[in-house]
Amino acid sequence: MTRKIIFDTDPGVDDAAALLLAHRHPALDLIGVTTIFGNADIDDVTRNALWLREVFGFDAPVARGAALSLSGDAGPYPEFIHGVDGLGGLAPASVSEEPDPRPAHVLISDLARKAGGDVTIVAVGRLTNLALALMHDEKLPNYIRDVIIMGGAFGGGNGNVTPAAEANIIGDPVAADIVFGANWTVHAVGLDVTRQVMMTEEMFAGVKSGDTAAKLVRDASKLYSRYHDRFGIDGFYVHDSSAVACAISPELFTFREGPVRVVREGIARGQTILRDVDTFYPPGAWDNRPSHKVAFEVDAKGVLNLLESALQQ
Amino acid sequence: MTRKIIFDTDPGVDDAAALLLAHRHPALDLIGVTTIFGNADIDDVTRNALWLREVFGFDAPVARGAALSLSGDAGPYPEFIHGVDGLGGLAPASVSEEPDPRPAHVLISDLARKAGGDVTIVAVGRLTNLALALMHDEKLPNYIRDVIIMGGAFGGGNGNVTPAAEANIIGDPVAADIVFGANWTVHAVGLDVTRQVMMTEEMFAGVKSGDTAAKLVRDASKLYSRYHDRFGIDGFYVHDSSAVACAISPELFTFREGPVRVVREGIARGQTILRDVDTFYPPGAWDNRPSHKVAFEVDAKGVLNLLESALQQ
Repeated sequence: MTRKIIFDTDPGVDDAAALLLAHRHPALDLIGVTTIFGNADIDDVTRNALWLREVFGFDAPVARGAALSLSGDAGPYPEFIHGVDGLGGLAPASVSEEPDPRPAHVLISDLARKAGGDVTIVAVGRLTNLALALMHDEKLPNYIRDVIIMGGAFGGGNGNVTPAAEANIIGDPVAADIVFGANWTVHAVGLDVTRQVMMTEEMFAGVKSGDTAAKLVRDASKLYSRYHDRFGIDGFYVHDSSAVACAISPELFTFREGPVRVVREGIARGQTILRDVDTFYPPGAWDNRPSHKVAFEVDAKGVLNLLESALQQ
Repeated sequence: MTRKIIFDTDPGVDDAAALLLAHRHPALDLIGVTTIFGNADIDDVTRNALWLREVFGFDAPVARGAALSLSGDAGPYPEFIHGVDGLGGLAPASVSEEPDPRPAHVLISDLARKAGGDVTIVAVGRLTNLALALMHDEKLPNYIRDVIIMGGAFGGGNGNVTPAAEANIIGDPVAADIVFGANWTVHAVGLDVTRQVMMTEEMFAGVKSGDTAAKLVRDASKLYSRYHDRFGIDGFYVHDSSAVACAISPELFTFREGPVRVVREGIARGQTILRDVDTFYPPGAWDNRPSHKVAFEVDAKGVLNLLESALQQ
């Protein structure tokens, strides 16, 4: 029994690895890919997704998503991590294929309704497309099995853009707060766990010489790896593939449950805060919000084994 | 060698216990008590402090502090925890003694300058008086050995007024942000550790029948204990005495160091966020701020032993 997934992504070096895992793992059925600005601008990440479809060889439609956040922001883009093209300098200037004519948020709604409720959204970038999908189709949660995001930093002071905030969430905090406010279950795979999952270049040693897809991921990762080196980090964080791993094997993660709010302004902008349901509070901003699942522990080796299998297929 | 301390307080049931510990422990020399609105209004907490001086029998001056926060807020007061009078219903309607003629923040400055730099401020309420003292005397940090506060929740979602915020900090977040911005070392003893220090009523069993001071603390604690009972908590948290314990035996605590910001607005208002000094961040709100010490682990038994000794003297 496979799980149908829509992969919302801003490729992105670790997005490429995560997409390969999503495409290759037999437990998943990749039915759509939607793009969102982030690691590069929307033109570049959409071209990258179309190119990855060509090299990886999957059939799912690729739809272009938002170019700006709900607050109207876009760049600067992290060229020092993902390269000027978003894929470590490897992407072609253009591709022959065109994206699906529908915007990303419309494709999400169409695919979910067509599948009759058994769709998982795995979103590894800003949550703008998901917020737009909720604005476009208010009944969307009825057609979604669950949502898995790579995003957030719930530990207090463990963000990566500011001490308070993780990149995907601070990239569109209003969209994230809307997504955590909708009546579906979000599994948040944030820095609390993804920083526990470290990959090294040795994991590419088993890539087969004829496997152009895995070789693309390996080669794109070189700049990404050097970025981590600069900060004395041995290997690199497996952010996005951890979210895909959560769709394949949720038992690798330990979750705490409760309502989540996202700070929209001030120095803590982009911070994700889980309400402890065992603590009594006066009426406040977390009331009447749905409960979500926030990952705090992970079997890192289990996640790495999944990724390694996809790379050495 | 005793440590001179100024105790800034809003008595308050657990404030009374902490004040008794500060007065009785031989390692401390209580040179001043300053009051701040919080557990009750400024009139009540000042009367309570004067009454505690009478019953406990110490000589240090008691000065009246701020009636409002730097944002202009005061009540509502937590009568369901500390009683309408702030001391579980035990306080007399009035006392004969008058407070020191100076406002609290002036007394803090005068005492610190007189002692020539060897003064520790232990603040267990809102930080309004400390911020006013910095506004009154910008060189004050030169005359302060260190500052120990009971305040903050650094774990992300472990506040007690909101998921983000602890009571003393949300009671005056601007003052707290000023205090963490000053060039002195703040030891923050927040909910991360004080919720690990649970006292039970059995600890009062050894109070001597002639010890009116310890009996006052015991009797005032009854309502406080019942409040905890309502939430299924066996015993009650030793918030304020933990800060005094930190002045006596800092080795009971394990600290992480770094700059701290306090969120001033929005749903995370009052949240304390420690910057991880090992993580690289783009320029931001934590830059050029002094480093402080935030307690994350505590030898709870060690803290309780100190308090028990003071109660059974």
